Amino acid sequence: MKFLIINGVNLNMTGKREPEIYGSKTLEDINKKISQFCNKNGDEAEFYQTNIEGDICTAIQNAKADGIILNAGAYTHYSIAIRDAISSIKIPVIEVHISNVFKREEFRHTSVISAVCKGVICGFSENSYILGIMSFKL
Amino acid sequence: MKFLIINGVNLNMTGKREPEIYGSKTLEDINKKISQFCNKNGDEAEFYQTNIEGDICTAIQNAKADGIILNAGAYTHYSIAIRDAISSIKIPVIEVHISNVFKREEFRHTSVISAVCKGVICGFSENSYILGIMSFKL
Amino acid sequence: MKFLIINGVNLNMTGKREPEIYGSKTLEDINKKISQFCNKNGDEAEFYQTNIEGDICTAIQNAKADGIILNAGAYTHYSIAIRDAISSIKIPVIEVHISNVFKREEFRHTSVISAVCKGVICGFSENSYILGIMSFKL
Amino acid sequence: MKFLIINGVNLNMTGKREPEIYGSKTLEDINKKISQFCNKNGDEAEFYQTNIEGDICTAIQNAKADGIILNAGAYTHYSIAIRDAISSIKIPVIEVHISNVFKREEFRHTSVISAVCKGVICGFSENSYILGIMSFKL
Amino acid sequence: MKFLIINGVNLNMTGKREPEIYGSKTLEDINKKISQFCNKNGDEAEFYQTNIEGDICTAIQNAKADGIILNAGAYTHYSIAIRDAISSIKIPVIEVHISNVFKREEFRHTSVISAVCKGVICGFSENSYILGIMSFKL
Amino acid sequence: MKFLIINGVNLNMTGKREPEIYGSKTLEDINKKISQFCNKNGDEAEFYQTNIEGDICTAIQNAKADGIILNAGAYTHYSIAIRDAISSIKIPVIEVHISNVFKREEFRHTSVISAVCKGVICGFSENSYILGIMSFKL
Amino acid sequence: MKFLIINGVNLNMTGKREPEIYGSKTLEDINKKISQFCNKNGDEAEFYQTNIEGDICTAIQNAKADGIILNAGAYTHYSIAIRDAISSIKIPVIEVHISNVFKREEFRHTSVISAVCKGVICGFSENSYILGIMSFKL
Amino acid sequence: MKFLIINGVNLNMTGKREPEIYGSKTLEDINKKISQFCNKNGDEAEFYQTNIEGDICTAIQNAKADGIILNAGAYTHYSIAIRDAISSIKIPVIEVHISNVFKREEFRHTSVISAVCKGVICGFSENSYILGIMSFKL
Amino acid sequence: MKFLIINGVNLNMTGKREPEIYGSKTLEDINKKISQFCNKNGDEAEFYQTNIEGDICTAIQNAKADGIILNAGAYTHYSIAIRDAISSIKIPVIEVHISNVFKREEFRHTSVISAVCKGVICGFSENSYILGIMSFKL
Amino acid sequence: MKFLIINGVNLNMTGKREPEIYGSKTLEDINKKISQFCNKNGDEAEFYQTNIEGDICTAIQNAKADGIILNAGAYTHYSIAIRDAISSIKIPVIEVHISNVFKREEFRHTSVISAVCKGVICGFSENSYILGIMSFKL
Amino acid sequence: MKFLIINGVNLNMTGKREPEIYGSKTLEDINKKISQFCNKNGDEAEFYQTNIEGDICTAIQNAKADGIILNAGAYTHYSIAIRDAISSIKIPVIEVHISNVFKREEFRHTSVISAVCKGVICGFSENSYILGIMSFKL
Amino acid sequence: MKFLIINGVNLNMTGKREPEIYGSKTLEDINKKISQFCNKNGDEAEFYQTNIEGDICTAIQNAKADGIILNAGAYTHYSIAIRDAISSIKIPVIEVHISNVFKREEFRHTSVISAVCKGVICGFSENSYILGIMSFKL
Repeated sequence: MKFLIINGVNLNMTGKREPEIYGSKTLEDINKKISQFCNKNGDEAEFYQTNIEGDICTAIQNAKADGIILNAGAYTHYSIAIRDAISSIKIPVIEVHISNVFKREEFRHTSVISAVCKGVICGFSENSYILGIMSFKL
Repeated sequence: MKFLIINGVNLNMTGKREPEIYGSKTLEDINKKISQFCNKNGDEAEFYQTNIEGDICTAIQNAKADGIILNAGAYTHYSIAIRDAISSIKIPVIEVHISNVFKREEFRHTSVISAVCKGVICGFSENSYILGIMSFKL
Repeated sequence: MKFLIINGVNLNMTGKREPEIYGSKTLEDINKKISQFCNKNGDEAEFYQTNIEGDICTAIQNAKADGIILNAGAYTHYSIAIRDAISSIKIPVIEVHISNVFKREEFRHTSVISAVCKGVICGFSENSYILGIMSFKL
Repeated sequence: MKFLIINGVNLNMTGKREPEIYGSKTLEDINKKISQFCNKNGDEAEFYQTNIEGDICTAIQNAKADGIILNAGAYTHYSIAIRDAISSIKIPVIEVHISNVFKREEFRHTSVISAVCKGVICGFSENSYILGIMSFKL
Repeated sequence: MKFLIINGVNLNMTGKREPEIYGSKTLEDINKKISQFCNKNGDEAEFYQTNIEGDICTAIQNAKADGIILNAGAYTHYSIAIRDAISSIKIPVIEVHISNVFKREEFRHTSVISAVCKGVICGFSENSYILGIMSFKL
Repeated sequence: MKFLIINGVNLNMTGKREPEIYGSKTLEDINKKISQFCNKNGDEAEFYQTNIEGDICTAIQNAKADGIILNAGAYTHYSIAIRDAISSIKIPVIEVHISNVFKREEFRHTSVISAVCKGVICGFSENSYILGIMSFKL
Repeated sequence: MKFLIINGVNLNMTGKREPEIYGSKTLEDINKKISQFCNKNGDEAEFYQTNIEGDICTAIQNAKADGIILNAGAYTHYSIAIRDAISSIKIPVIEVHISNVFKREEFRHTSVISAVCKGVICGFSENSYILGIMSFKL
Repeated sequence: MKFLIINGVNLNMTGKREPEIYGSKTLEDINKKISQFCNKNGDEAEFYQTNIEGDICTAIQNAKADGIILNAGAYTHYSIAIRDAISSIKIPVIEVHISNVFKREEFRHTSVISAVCKGVICGFSENSYILGIMSFKL
Repeated sequence: MKFLIINGVNLNMTGKREPEIYGSKTLEDINKKISQFCNKNGDEAEFYQTNIEGDICTAIQNAKADGIILNAGAYTHYSIAIRDAISSIKIPVIEVHISNVFKREEFRHTSVISAVCKGVICGFSENSYILGIMSFKL
Repeated sequence: MKFLIINGVNLNMTGKREPEIYGSKTLEDINKKISQFCNKNGDEAEFYQTNIEGDICTAIQNAKADGIILNAGAYTHYSIAIRDAISSIKIPVIEVHISNVFKREEFRHTSVISAVCKGVICGFSENSYILGIMSFKL
Repeated sequence: MKFLIINGVNLNMTGKREPEIYGSKTLEDINKKISQFCNKNGDEAEFYQTNIEGDICTAIQNAKADGIILNAGAYTHYSIAIRDAISSIKIPVIEVHISNVFKREEFRHTSVISAVCKGVICGFSENSYILGIMSFKL
Repeated sequence: MKFLIINGVNLNMTGKREPEIYGSKTLEDINKKISQFCNKNGDEAEFYQTNIEGDICTAIQNAKADGIILNAGAYTHYSIAIRDAISSIKIPVIEVHISNVFKREEFRHTSVISAVCKGVICGFSENSYILGIMSFKL
């Protein structure tokens, strides 16, 4: 199987910003761990990170994969554009978050994309991505 | 007369996604139909599509046309940036939608740009664009 | 084709009240322009105006036409009765407004009838009616 | 006993519109069934239907009956005028609806008249009227 | 001077319904008192009552008077149609209420017409009308 | 036919508490009246009362009857658990209330179960139950 | 009769501030006009102005008059303290405003004191006070 | 490791009710699959199901396990009691749902327990439980 | 005098959970202190704790005491069932809380039972119960 | 110990206004009872009453006492100024109310000062003050 | 130039209360720093502090200065009285706050006076005042 | 010191659009004035403008400066992405606006970034930037 892991805005700062929330692993560390996990299963992982909302939409539209693991970052809470991009494709998308967003500020409790994703996983640090991939293998 | 037709986020997927909502004509089909309609009247149509919110703003700021027909897609519902871009120019802008947005999810009933557009037309599939152009010719 | 143009409450005052909002053409002027437009296309236009909400419902129920162009006036914002009347017939109804209602008071931004109309056109002065009729001819 | 059955706006379309919601019996069919039920009990039923909100108020004010069965249609949801008319008389009024309004759109969940009626019955198709009459006979 | 006194829905029941709120004077009693007050000042009073919202609009549109005293009854709280009718004329309109509406149910605290009337007077029983007329004589 | 009459929280206090709201008949009196009514028709009534929300859910899940008459008491206003229990079975459920809940506190105007019941009957004291049973016999 | 006219916060600036809203008569001019009106009727008027909320409460508590005409200024919109002071006395209080507050900002549409006053008069410039006094003489 | 899997209200109906939402596997099927998964890893799974909110609290309080997988059913949306029970223990709790609750009714989008759980997993049918257990093994 | 002290959901965990909020005294310690206080005054205290909402209702219904001291725990914030149980008896009920709930999460600021209790005492740790009992002795 | 008892706006009217809410004891009666209670315990009570919000703040800032018992009257519901004054000192403040404010108007259910007080006591008439003092002696 | 620096409620406690929010400089320290800054520029600073809302209004009304620097303290969030006082004068007023109010409680994010001030400066401790004065010198 | 001045969406139109709000100075004029001010103090200013939200985030992440002066334009009101970018760095950020946003449309009164900035300055036209820089020099 092939997975596309999309990381949205500010996730390039993971491991560098607010470690008490996001842990101290960098996005590169996380991606490496995901790659190793996939390789072990004979799967393939492709990675994309961008801070630009419209580029996330384009990446979703152009995705060639069996599944998408999407951490849209702050766009999760207001980007109907990303929501519509997800609706426009057939590939299942799993929404993931490193932190348990429901423990944080009120405005992070709303996701405008959950309703168009297959499932939601949050709060397991970098393992949220791994669990998202596992969900395709069960 | 010269018209600039701006299509925002995910409208490049038209005809490919959710045909029960957006019909099966692609954006290219629609643009062609608009071009033919304009040519018949001796008018000219220029087309621009982008998924990036800020690029829509720039396109609006730089527009050289007698009128703009704008389908901002999902940005319609939250982009105060596009609203401000429209306010910053003198060219009249017509807001159009392919589907009748008021028949759909609650969050699509709110447009933050209607108040700064000349008029609003929605629900006539690709003809929403044509009616927008016609409005300048009456 | 035959069109029924229904004008609701206070639209008999058009051209007489608040010309800065509604223009200086009277309803008779507007109807004449619509008639001429229809005649040119070999179509027929029938006109009805009433200030009484229930009479608008009855007019909709009894309509014999290929399309209805409806400007419900202030009832647009609260008449679920008119909404239900539209739902009860098969003839497509186009909601039109002379002014761009989204530029005016907050309470005019809500229409309880948009969701049951085929499409919505607003902001083109008397041409909103003409564009409504054109939408059937494309 | 004598009962006044008042049907409000668009209920003259019953059996003709949206049969999946309102069934296929016409208002005449329903009234006949009510009459027969009343006759069987030696009671009398009078029927009134109007699309005009103010006429419902007048009918309520002038009612000569032991009980009123009122299906106000869409006015149920906003007509404080009908509410005040009910408050202004001594005859008990039963609010009825053909469909279970709580299964439908959000705006149909609010009734501004329930609080001034004796009781509310909804969801039993034409039998809602019959049950309303029965409530006086227990 | 000439005054038009318009009484809206259910006000024909005044003196007959809920006397603890509206007093025991009938509308005829009140109108007589107003007439006598006007005559004493050499003024003229014309009276109109209707339960029909659209007819109030028409009455306002056609008014020939130096001032209108309007008790719209329950329509006060939701009739944007009456609001627009008031906006469409030049004659000053005074909004009056027999009871102090602010002492009653929450929904009676909102008037959609106050903003387009010259002034508001409530809580002085039938004298609210008299004070409305007096306001033109000071 | 066989009916299951379920009474929820505090309904064992009926006739003992607040008689101005709930009347002076005890639950036993009411059940007896229902039994007699059913017997007269050759029907059978089974009764269950509990104060425990989860036990109402279990009773609904295990019901063996042609119809359920449910007065959930205060749970009506917030028990999504009971709502889901009703959704999980095929037997039609009628929601009943002794008092007209819409005449009482604001929080009693909301029912989270109405939308999954067949119909709603309220305000007819113990006859609300009888009318619920009658609704199956028409 | 004896009247106490209480003017609250910023009303000492009347005639000096924003004349397009409050007119160009000073509070002294207004008080003089009120005095003359009272004298003509053989009545007596006492005047009190303060910017301090608590002092308005004290003035109300200590009032010796047949009626109070109260313009609380901005405190109208939030002073539950003044509301309670009015509730604590038996003398009828008339709430008045120079301007039609309902034509102004949204936050001026709410009065926390209307519900405990006998009546409300607004929009008649300084004549609002005079009409308030007149209301006691009818 | 030892896991306690708690299923709340109506989950005993899984596989029997609304299979289009919850699938056709019964709770027993699901528990068996979980047991087998645990056994394969040398872990142990204990199961508890109850319809009673307070009993869920007690089960949480008394839990002896390395982790709790909790599907509280409808109580998820309003049981602050369960929330407090989770807060009162040290064992990490994972909130799981069979369906993607964010695709369903608005009231299912709110969880009062997410903020006190370690993480949330929803939308993967019975695999939501398995992923919850996996999250402890990564 | 005889007092019934009812402790609701999760209060059996007092002294064991979140000591920074609830202190380190167990419910047994608290009950003992209350008993000693009562004995000193020649009064009697009976104690009941349950996690089940419906059982709290039953306990209130069956209470034999001169006063009830009720700490309903989390049910305080949503149990209209408990509210109704309190309304159904004549014995005065005092609502108490160990912590000052108004210093905590927003959702703990609302009590649905305060309005039917005699008084409310919160924030004095276990002394809230003692003050509740004292209130009967003054 | 020394206690400062601060009574805010309108509390000087206690025993004189609305005795059905506040009882018939005057503030002097209440203060005397408090003094006697304190003296019996060898404690000292100082009393301060003012109608002026800012003076309550000053009194709190300047307080020399072991504890403050504060009944802020209507200011309770909106005076962030008093809230900030309480936050600015180290002396514990107990919020008290004579009546059970939660039984009264909606706007009295909100206190902006509870969150910065040590505890809250309401509904025990003048004994609310006494219980507040007792809370320091347990 | 001459500046009037007005400090409202509780600001006399600055440096004495909550130093983690307001710093440890007293109001006297701050005023001294402002004076020195003004003197250096040949400007003059006048200082006024009061806890009484109405006295702030009076100070604003009577101001003789080229500019007012206003820190209204807690009154910022609800004093429409102060708002109206600012509107009633021609002198520009700068709203300042020592702390960044947007980092604090939700209720401090709303200012009812910002809309009538020339500008707003917050978050720079005592330098917020200095920057306010500087704004007149650029 | 080195400052990074970031201007967001549509600010490239400053001086060209709506001069009654933003003045007639272009962004180049403003930047020049800022540069000159910095040079005078021996400081350095770097400028960046973009219409793309994600690029603002990147610019913030990559900033090399002692302070950032940020005018995010319309993104101020909804870009949680920019908020998170600010949170991810250590450099202090000052939020500035040319106009007093609180005098404009309601939706411009909310800033989602204020809470993570050091301070806020608005309403001083181009001097808002200068005051932001000055704040670092005091």
